Amino acid sequence: MSDLRIAVLGVGMMGADHIARIGSKIAGARVSVVNDYVTEKAEQLAATIPGCRAISDPLDAIADPDVDAVILATPGTTHEKQLLACLEHGKPVMCEKPLTTDVATSLEVVKREAELGKRLIQVGFMRRFDVEYAALKALLDDGDLGRPLVMHCAHRNPTVPPHFDSSMIVKDSLVHEVDVTRFLFDEEITSVQMVRPAANPAAPEGLQDPQIAIFHTATGKHVDVEVFVTTGVAYEVRTEVVAELGSAMIGLDVGLLRKSAPGHWGGQITPSFKERFGQAYDTEIQRWVDAVRAGTNVDGPGAWDGYAAAAVCAAGVESLETGQPVTVEMVSRDSIKGA
Amino acid sequence: MSDLRIAVLGVGMMGADHIARIGSKIAGARVSVVNDYVTEKAEQLAATIPGCRAISDPLDAIADPDVDAVILATPGTTHEKQLLACLEHGKPVMCEKPLTTDVATSLEVVKREAELGKRLIQVGFMRRFDVEYAALKALLDDGDLGRPLVMHCAHRNPTVPPHFDSSMIVKDSLVHEVDVTRFLFDEEITSVQMVRPAANPAAPEGLQDPQIAIFHTATGKHVDVEVFVTTGVAYEVRTEVVAELGSAMIGLDVGLLRKSAPGHWGGQITPSFKERFGQAYDTEIQRWVDAVRAGTNVDGPGAWDGYAAAAVCAAGVESLETGQPVTVEMVSRDSIKGA
Amino acid sequence: MSDLRIAVLGVGMMGADHIARIGSKIAGARVSVVNDYVTEKAEQLAATIPGCRAISDPLDAIADPDVDAVILATPGTTHEKQLLACLEHGKPVMCEKPLTTDVATSLEVVKREAELGKRLIQVGFMRRFDVEYAALKALLDDGDLGRPLVMHCAHRNPTVPPHFDSSMIVKDSLVHEVDVTRFLFDEEITSVQMVRPAANPAAPEGLQDPQIAIFHTATGKHVDVEVFVTTGVAYEVRTEVVAELGSAMIGLDVGLLRKSAPGHWGGQITPSFKERFGQAYDTEIQRWVDAVRAGTNVDGPGAWDGYAAAAVCAAGVESLETGQPVTVEMVSRDSIKGA
Amino acid sequence: MSDLRIAVLGVGMMGADHIARIGSKIAGARVSVVNDYVTEKAEQLAATIPGCRAISDPLDAIADPDVDAVILATPGTTHEKQLLACLEHGKPVMCEKPLTTDVATSLEVVKREAELGKRLIQVGFMRRFDVEYAALKALLDDGDLGRPLVMHCAHRNPTVPPHFDSSMIVKDSLVHEVDVTRFLFDEEITSVQMVRPAANPAAPEGLQDPQIAIFHTATGKHVDVEVFVTTGVAYEVRTEVVAELGSAMIGLDVGLLRKSAPGHWGGQITPSFKERFGQAYDTEIQRWVDAVRAGTNVDGPGAWDGYAAAAVCAAGVESLETGQPVTVEMVSRDSIKGA
Repeated sequence: MSDLRIAVLGVGMMGADHIARIGSKIAGARVSVVNDYVTEKAEQLAATIPGCRAISDPLDAIADPDVDAVILATPGTTHEKQLLACLEHGKPVMCEKPLTTDVATSLEVVKREAELGKRLIQVGFMRRFDVEYAALKALLDDGDLGRPLVMHCAHRNPTVPPHFDSSMIVKDSLVHEVDVTRFLFDEEITSVQMVRPAANPAAPEGLQDPQIAIFHTATGKHVDVEVFVTTGVAYEVRTEVVAELGSAMIGLDVGLLRKSAPGHWGGQITPSFKERFGQAYDTEIQRWVDAVRAGTNVDGPGAWDGYAAAAVCAAGVESLETGQPVTVEMVSRDSIKGA
Repeated sequence: MSDLRIAVLGVGMMGADHIARIGSKIAGARVSVVNDYVTEKAEQLAATIPGCRAISDPLDAIADPDVDAVILATPGTTHEKQLLACLEHGKPVMCEKPLTTDVATSLEVVKREAELGKRLIQVGFMRRFDVEYAALKALLDDGDLGRPLVMHCAHRNPTVPPHFDSSMIVKDSLVHEVDVTRFLFDEEITSVQMVRPAANPAAPEGLQDPQIAIFHTATGKHVDVEVFVTTGVAYEVRTEVVAELGSAMIGLDVGLLRKSAPGHWGGQITPSFKERFGQAYDTEIQRWVDAVRAGTNVDGPGAWDGYAAAAVCAAGVESLETGQPVTVEMVSRDSIKGA
Repeated sequence: MSDLRIAVLGVGMMGADHIARIGSKIAGARVSVVNDYVTEKAEQLAATIPGCRAISDPLDAIADPDVDAVILATPGTTHEKQLLACLEHGKPVMCEKPLTTDVATSLEVVKREAELGKRLIQVGFMRRFDVEYAALKALLDDGDLGRPLVMHCAHRNPTVPPHFDSSMIVKDSLVHEVDVTRFLFDEEITSVQMVRPAANPAAPEGLQDPQIAIFHTATGKHVDVEVFVTTGVAYEVRTEVVAELGSAMIGLDVGLLRKSAPGHWGGQITPSFKERFGQAYDTEIQRWVDAVRAGTNVDGPGAWDGYAAAAVCAAGVESLETGQPVTVEMVSRDSIKGA
Repeated sequence: MSDLRIAVLGVGMMGADHIARIGSKIAGARVSVVNDYVTEKAEQLAATIPGCRAISDPLDAIADPDVDAVILATPGTTHEKQLLACLEHGKPVMCEKPLTTDVATSLEVVKREAELGKRLIQVGFMRRFDVEYAALKALLDDGDLGRPLVMHCAHRNPTVPPHFDSSMIVKDSLVHEVDVTRFLFDEEITSVQMVRPAANPAAPEGLQDPQIAIFHTATGKHVDVEVFVTTGVAYEVRTEVVAELGSAMIGLDVGLLRKSAPGHWGGQITPSFKERFGQAYDTEIQRWVDAVRAGTNVDGPGAWDGYAAAAVCAAGVESLETGQPVTVEMVSRDSIKGA
C-alpha cells in the first residue's frame, strides 16, 4: 500500500511538530502539502520535505488531488470553514482542538458529518493516547475498582504566553480535563462551577489563576480540577479516580499507582522484556534506519562491542565452573586499524 | 527519499517482531525480503506484506538488488557467514546478539569490517536505546555525579525456556549487563567472577540460578550483577550507579531516581507538555494514519467530543464570571442521526 | 521531679489507649485516677495499674488532690461541665475533640479560660504532632515554597460504625481537616460549602458518602476535602499544599514529596543515622527496660550475637588484606550449654 | 512498680544520647548513676539529672546498690572487664557494640554468661528494632515470599571521622550488616570476601572506600554489601532480600517495597488511624506531659482552636442540607482578652 498523503494546514508550533513527527516516526504516511497564512513559511518548510508542495489557499490544499487526508493546526476561528470543506471533499481530517470556537458551530459540524453517514473528523484530545490515561481507562473498564465515584485533577503549567486570559484557562487548559472526564466516565458533564481563589501574586495582573473547576456529571459524579498555569515549577497533570473498590492515580512521575483491597498500594509488575524494552527496540530500529538512509550505517553498538561482549561472556562461562575470578582475554582495539 | 528496503533473515520471535515494528511504527523503511530456514514460514509472512518476497537462501537474500540493508535474527551459529556476506556486498546490517558464538570469530568479523574502512555492522544491544538507560548515561556524561565508582545490577526473569542451561544465563542474559557496563563506564571489563549461591528450589534440576557476577573494569571499578531467571514473579532490570557525588538508580518502575547533594532524592521534573505527552501525540497520529489507510478514518475522539467539550467550556466561562454552578446546554446525541 | 499524676476520664477506646500509652511509652507521668460512667470498668482497669484508684464521679476525680492534670476521653456532651471544673480547680486538661458539642458552649469555655489569665486547656487535634504534618508545616514556615494558595485533602476510612450519620462525617471526620487548614495556613476559615456527589452504593442507606467540602479562608485561599468513610479499602489521609513556588504532598506512604524549582521532585535526604535509626534506639531501650523490669533481662540480640559478629568481622578484616574468601572460625553454639 | 535505676557508663555521644532518651521518652526507667573516664564530664551531667550521682570507677558504678541495670557506652576495649563485672553482680547490661574487641574474649563472655544459667547481656544491634527491618523480618517469617536466596545491602555514610581506617569500616560499619544477615536469615555466616574497588578519590589517603563484602551463609545463601563511608551525600541503609516467591526492599525512603505474584509491586495499606497516627498520639501526650510539668500547661491546639473547629463544623452541617456556601460565624479573637 502506498503512503498516506497528508496536507498539514497551519505550520506554527503544533503543525510543525506534526510534520516532524510524520517525517521521523510515523509508518505509512508522508506530508504532501503544507499551508500557512504566512505563505513564505509554508514554502520554506515544503522545500525541506521530499515530494511536498506549499499551497497558499487552505481550501485549495484540502481539495488537492495529491491529498488523502488533512491535519488542521490552524487558528480555531478558521476550523469551521475548513472542516466543512473536508466533509464536502470526503477527506478524513485530524483537527487540533477546539473543534470550532463556539457551541453552535460545533453542533453544526457534528450535524453535517452525521448527514454524510460516515465519520471523517477526529479531534486532537491526545491524552486518550497517553499510556497512563490509557492504563487508567483500562483499569476502570476492567471493573476491578468498581464504578467510579469521584475524580480529582490537577493541571499545572510553569508559565503561559503573555496574552493568556482567564477564559483561555477554561477553553485551552481545562478543556483537556473536560475530555478526560467524558473519556474516563463515559458520560456527559451536566454542570460546571468555577471557584476563584485568591490569585497567585506572580500571575499577570488580571489573570484569575489558579482556578478550581467543579463538574457534576449525568449520574451525579463529582470532579474537581485545579488549573494553575503560572506555577513557575513544572508541567504536571495528575488525575485520581476514587471508585467503589479502590482508587488509582496517574501523573505522579511513577506510573499508575493503585490502592485497593486486599491490602496493597502499588503499581503493575512488568511481565516481560517486551513491556520493559519495547520502546528501546522501536528507537533502536528507527535510529538504525535513519543512519543507513543517511549513509552512516551505524548508530549504536558496533562489531567491536559484539566482540567485547563475547570475550567477557567467555570468561564468565569459565568462572561459572570454578567460582574464581577469570581474566578477560581481548586484543587491544588500537591493534586493529579502523575498528 | 524512497523508503529503505530491508531484508529480515530469520522470522522467529525476534524477526517477526522487527517485521511488525517496521510495518507499523518505523518511518522511512519497508521490508522487501524475508528469509527463514523454514521456507514456508517466510513465504506465508511475505504474502502479508505489500511489496515483499521470500528468498530461500540467506546469502541470496543479502545479495538481492532489492535489498538496501539487512536485519539478522537468525540463530547465532549462522551469524559469522551472514555478516561476512553483508560486508562483502557492502550492505549495512543490524545483527541481533550475539555477534557470533565465539570470541575468535567475533574478532575475525571486527577485523574484516575494519579492513573495509567503513562501518556496516550494528549489534542489537537495545538497552542503550531505553529511555531510562539513556537518561542514566546522560546523567553520568553530564558529570553531575562525578566519576562512577561502583555499579549494582539485578536482572530477573519470571521464567526461561526448558532448554536454558547455566552457561546460557551468562551468554544470553548477563551479556546485556556486560554491554551496559561498557556503555555506561566507557571502559572494558578486565575480569569476571561468577558466584554460585544455593540454587532456587524452583529452578530446573541442574540449573545454577541465581548467579552473581562480579566484574572488575580497567580502572578498577566494581560491578555486581544478580542474574535470576526463574523468579516466578516479574521481569525486572535494575541498575544503580554509585559515583563520587551521588548515586542514581533506574528500573524501580518510577523512572530514574537520583540521590545527591544538597539534600534531595527524587526524579526530574517534567518541564512541558512535550515531554509529558510526546508519546501520546505520536500514538495519536500513528493510529489516525492507520485508521485512514484502513478506511475507518477515525480512531479516537470525534466531532461529537469536540462539540461536548465546547458546550462544557462555554458553561465554564460563564461560571467564571459568577462563581456559581452553570448548567451545561447540549442537544441529545440521539437527536442527531449518525452522530 | 516526681511523675505527673494524671486522671483519665472515660476509659473507652481512646481513654484506654491513652492509659496504655502513659504506662508504656511516656516519660515522667503516671495514671493516678481513672473514671468512667460504667464504674466497674474503671475499677477493673485501676486494679491493673500500680498506684491507681477509680473514682466514680468525674468532678470528684478532677478535684482529687492526687491528680495534677486531667485527660478527658468522655462523651462530648459532658465536656463543658468537666472543662469548667478543670478551670475552677486550676488543673491542666487534655481534652479529646470536640471541645464541646456546640459553638456557644465552646465560646463560653474559651472565655472562662481567658478570664483565668492562664492557659489550661489543650484540645486533641493530634495531627499537628504527626511527623509528616509537622514536616509540611515546617516547610511552609521556612518559606521555601512561598505563600500557600490552594490545598487539596483526602480523608478516607475503610468503614465507620453503624450509627455514623451524614453530619458526623462533618463533625467527627472533616473536623480534622478544619484544624489542619487553620494549623497550616494560620488563618480562619470564612465559608464552607458541602458538595454531595452520588453516594457510594456500598454506603449505608441514607448516608451521604462521599462528601466534598470546599473551604474559603480569610485571605481567599481555596481548600477542598474529599471525606469518604466507606471506601472498604484503607485508612488514607492525604494533604497537598500548592504554593507560589512549588507544591508538597504528604500521606502517599512515601513521606513528604515536594516539587519545586529548579527541577526536582522528591523527598529529603536522611543526613545521619540519628534520623534514620532514632526510632530504633528508642524502641530498643524501652523494650530492654521492660524486659529487665519483667525479669527476663534480654529482649534482643544477646552475647552470642556479639560473639558471632566479632568472628565474622575478624574474617572480614583478614580478607581485606587479600581480597580472597576467608572462612569464619566459630565454635558451635551447642558446645556451650546455656548459650 | 518503681522505676528501673540505670547506670550509664561512658557519656560520649552514644551514652549522652541514651541518657537524654531515658529522661524524655522511656517509661519506667531513670538514670541513677553516670560514669566516664573524664570524671568532670560525668559530674556535670549528673548535676542536671534529678536523683543521679556520678561515680568515678566504672566497676564501683556497676556494683552500686542504687543500680538495677547497666548501659555500657564505654570504649570497646573496656567492655570485657565491665561485662564480667555485670555478670558477677547479676546485673542486666545493655552493651553497645562491639561485645568485646576480639573473638576470643567475646567467646569468653558468652561462656561466662552461659555458666550463670541466666541471660543478662544484650548487645546494641539496634537495627533489629527499626520498623522497616522489623517489617522485613516479619514478611520473611510469614513465609509469603518463600525462603530467602540472596540479599543485597548498601550502607552509605556521607562522611566518617578522620581516624577511621579500612578495618574500622569492617568492624564498625559492616558489623551491622553482619547482624542483619544473621537476624534476617537465622543462620551463621561461613565465609567472607572483601572486594576492593578503585577508591573514591575524595576518601582520605589510604582508606579503602568503598568496600564490597560478600558473605556466604551456612546453607549457601549469597549476601553482598556495599559499604561506602565517604559518599558526601546522605546516610543510606538499604537491604533487599530476594526470595523464592518475590523480593522486598527497605531503605528507599518509601517504607517496605515488595514485589511478588500475582502481579503487583508496592507497599502495605494503612488499615486504620492507629497505624497512621499512633506516633502523633504518643508525641502529643509526651509533649503535653512535659508542658504541664514545666508549668506552661499547653503545647498544642488550645480552647480557641476547639471553638473555631466547632464554628466551622456548624457551618458545614448547615451546608450539608443545602449544598450552598455557608459563612462561618465566629467572634473575633481580639474581643476576648487573654484568648
